[in-house]
Amino acid sequence: MNLDAATARDRFANARRAHLATADAAGHPHLVPVTFAVSSDRVYIAIDSKPKRSMDLKRLKNIAENPSVTLLADEYDDDWTRLWWARADGTARILTDDADRQAPIQLLQARYPQYVAEVPQGPVIEVTVNRWSGWSFADATSDVTLLA
Amino acid sequence: MNLDAATARDRFANARRAHLATADAAGHPHLVPVTFAVSSDRVYIAIDSKPKRSMDLKRLKNIAENPSVTLLADEYDDDWTRLWWARADGTARILTDDADRQAPIQLLQARYPQYVAEVPQGPVIEVTVNRWSGWSFADATSDVTLLA
Repeated sequence: MNLDAATARDRFANARRAHLATADAAGHPHLVPVTFAVSSDRVYIAIDSKPKRSMDLKRLKNIAENPSVTLLADEYDDDWTRLWWARADGTARILTDDADRQAPIQLLQARYPQYVAEVPQGPVIEVTVNRWSGWSFADATSDVTLLA
Repeated sequence: MNLDAATARDRFANARRAHLATADAAGHPHLVPVTFAVSSDRVYIAIDSKPKRSMDLKRLKNIAENPSVTLLADEYDDDWTRLWWARADGTARILTDDADRQAPIQLLQARYPQYVAEVPQGPVIEVTVNRWSGWSFADATSDVTLLA
């Protein structure tokens, strides 16, 4: 069944990794797994590598050409009654100024200790989400019961 | 490190689920988790629902508008030294004739018993892969050693 926007956002925000789809100006899609942090209706993704090299990354080139992106978090299990996914459709921009990067990097460090040990040096992708959606085989409210 | 095409294909083919990215004519990307089967350089994905209803699915509408797709399989682990992904870039078409659907459905049934219990009724997406690529934190050859 479909998840409401708030539930989809919660599921997404608590996942450990998501997938980021972008498309170039010609409409060829591109896809990478990403670590991320959510704050309100924004999703942040760090780039590890140095600014100069990282600007060659296809995901960043695509965003520069076409800021429309989508992110999906899900869990797979061979027991299909456990399947769910949550999706964030939005518009991306690339943060390169240290003043803009600082808060997102801190959010990411709070989730991933690797980013404390090795601070990401590249730009940060900021996705402003305009639609949260999702699906779960099981009734979403049954989670609440299980957790209660 | 980067995986060669044959290794990326093997990793992909053995994964249990992948993610399918499509884009509409305006370049808005779309993303769904999928089960799949690989045969040579083709990837097959079934649609469960009835043909009439399933043609409303965004993934099928996008493929009709723009057949360029990408698929990615990966594994996440909080131990980042275990990360890898494998990607298949290609061109999709939608198989609706039973004669075309039969062999792909059988491949899918061999991987997923759920498809034996409940045979997918919708069209099948066939992706002809023109590029296999991938990345693994660890040396890909170390897998061979571990499996030997």
